[in-house]
Amino acid sequence: MTTTVHETAQLTAGSLKVTADTLWLLDQTKLPHEQVWLAMEQEADLMAAIKGLKVRGAPLIGIAAAVFVALESVRQEPSELNSLIDRLLTSRPTAVNLSLNLEAMRKVLQESQSLAGEERAERLRAMAWQLFDREAKMCAALAAAGQQVIHPLKGSDKVKILTHCNTGSLATIGVGTAIGVITEAAKAGKVDKVWVSETRPLLQGGRLTAYEMVEAKISHQIITDSMAAYLMAQKEVDLVVVGADRIAVNGDVANKIGTYSLAVACHSHGVPFYVAAPATTYDPDCNSGCEIPIEQRPAEEVKGFRFEPKDDSAGGVAWSPEASEVFNPAFDVTPSRLISGYILPGGVAYHPAHITSRLRL
Amino acid sequence: MTTTVHETAQLTAGSLKVTADTLWLLDQTKLPHEQVWLAMEQEADLMAAIKGLKVRGAPLIGIAAAVFVALESVRQEPSELNSLIDRLLTSRPTAVNLSLNLEAMRKVLQESQSLAGEERAERLRAMAWQLFDREAKMCAALAAAGQQVIHPLKGSDKVKILTHCNTGSLATIGVGTAIGVITEAAKAGKVDKVWVSETRPLLQGGRLTAYEMVEAKISHQIITDSMAAYLMAQKEVDLVVVGADRIAVNGDVANKIGTYSLAVACHSHGVPFYVAAPATTYDPDCNSGCEIPIEQRPAEEVKGFRFEPKDDSAGGVAWSPEASEVFNPAFDVTPSRLISGYILPGGVAYHPAHITSRLRL
Repeated sequence: MTTTVHETAQLTAGSLKVTADTLWLLDQTKLPHEQVWLAMEQEADLMAAIKGLKVRGAPLIGIAAAVFVALESVRQEPSELNSLIDRLLTSRPTAVNLSLNLEAMRKVLQESQSLAGEERAERLRAMAWQLFDREAKMCAALAAAGQQVIHPLKGSDKVKILTHCNTGSLATIGVGTAIGVITEAAKAGKVDKVWVSETRPLLQGGRLTAYEMVEAKISHQIITDSMAAYLMAQKEVDLVVVGADRIAVNGDVANKIGTYSLAVACHSHGVPFYVAAPATTYDPDCNSGCEIPIEQRPAEEVKGFRFEPKDDSAGGVAWSPEASEVFNPAFDVTPSRLISGYILPGGVAYHPAHITSRLRL
Repeated sequence: MTTTVHETAQLTAGSLKVTADTLWLLDQTKLPHEQVWLAMEQEADLMAAIKGLKVRGAPLIGIAAAVFVALESVRQEPSELNSLIDRLLTSRPTAVNLSLNLEAMRKVLQESQSLAGEERAERLRAMAWQLFDREAKMCAALAAAGQQVIHPLKGSDKVKILTHCNTGSLATIGVGTAIGVITEAAKAGKVDKVWVSETRPLLQGGRLTAYEMVEAKISHQIITDSMAAYLMAQKEVDLVVVGADRIAVNGDVANKIGTYSLAVACHSHGVPFYVAAPATTYDPDCNSGCEIPIEQRPAEEVKGFRFEPKDDSAGGVAWSPEASEVFNPAFDVTPSRLISGYILPGGVAYHPAHITSRLRL
């Protein structure tokens, strides 16, 4: 099934479009088999899309929320917009991009409080569009910067890269973060193979990254998350590159569950482990990883494969006993000591102390 | 759905029965939702059951094959039985229990070649029944021996144990290996919680171990395989106990894919990592892990959840792009340096050099 957005878009990214002042998001729970665009007609649509992971990827969620606030500003008063921002801030706790982008919008809202409604809306729209453009530029810049960590080994001229979760154009504005680095390297002929870890429970690797690798015609193999260490022991992984949901001041990184396990395996095998992220992922108010709230998600995600538990038509399947309990943190925290470098818009930081100086374009 | 084996059984284990000289196996691909017993009427039934993982678990497969040969001996000539053994030996390459049990049967076959058919069949049956009994006794003995590694920490009187794949009465003859140790500890009131790693791709943890934990009323939580290291970092795992498909002379262990990743994480976090196995899992002809053949399984197992790719009625679901390739080793090898101890029928070996002296009951 495919639904297409026909009108000329005012904004376009892999999973986000704005046409006729309506925000459209590509339903990522339906990929790779169906491409369904959802219109965010009202707040409830966006909240459901965020919580149900129809829209996902820290950079993308942040921009989608900012754009939605801008589009609502022609219909809502400043006090209403302020409350809207408050409610959106609660939708997902771990990634910081959402709050950084929404706080940027709130600042413009406060500064334009005394202006006529039309002008205020115009300023909010200008800020959201600017955040969108900046996000795309940051991805392009970090993808270019990341090429310095691509070192073919042992007389080979290509590398085998493992990545986790999905960090490409579906999850960001632009070419992506970790996947941006990978596609850029592939264009330069430097990628032998990409190991795509499936990323249980929601399979963003096996569904979305695999889809992006097929689209980009990059040689890849899907593995279960439990195979990564075994591949490293066989010297089949030259480096690992992942994205991030939040980078703390001390360099600790919150990212999709399973990232920490990969970092531990890399450390044990001497495989470099890189984190790629735009400036909007850095949280200057968070000193270390232990301050990052970790979102707990529903048990159904682990006990089967069904993104919409209440929608049987989605073809879901449950495989665990009903009586069994589940532990389902959506993210984990990787300490900076396990991170070889941070691929940022302004270059690669090989020590946490250098992160801030590499954030700017 | 449930199919029950009504007649009085001559042999009974968790997933194996013999009634009226027919071998019945519980279809483990249908668990936990359906309990279907399959009659092994002919060789093709057993081969399909082994290759399709309807019967699984290294100790169980070994006994099922030996019992089948014994039951066939009333119908087949020695030369035919020899060929049957040859073909069964090829069905799954990694676990050694299958070949050890079949070679024991072959030895009896050779020794009874000159006897009358009836007497030969009687001797083969006696050997298979003896292997069955010995296997059950070994599980009971190693489960008891394993209690010495259950050490509650930090003033607590209970432990949190993580286990991988499924090693209980469904996978063995008797109480199981790693799960035997756990249920014995639970009976003694020493288990706070069992972390059940789901064991992608075939989910033997999320389906079968969870089912056995529910049946035994043991407090447990299912996790994705990628969460184990994160739990260890939070000091939520006191020890890990797993089974084995083959133990080499130097102490290296082949076991379900994901075992190595757990062992690496244990080593990094100072969490003890134990392997529990009967004597039939030790291979005196295999010097080290690098000699163990690793079975590669079909891509479909990783690209979705469907145990029978050709049977749409099974309610399978595929979630990855058709064009994507897959790497799907069914097992990995954990080097002895990562193993804290071997829980064996004759006691716990804390060094590979002590394994052989702990194999006997």
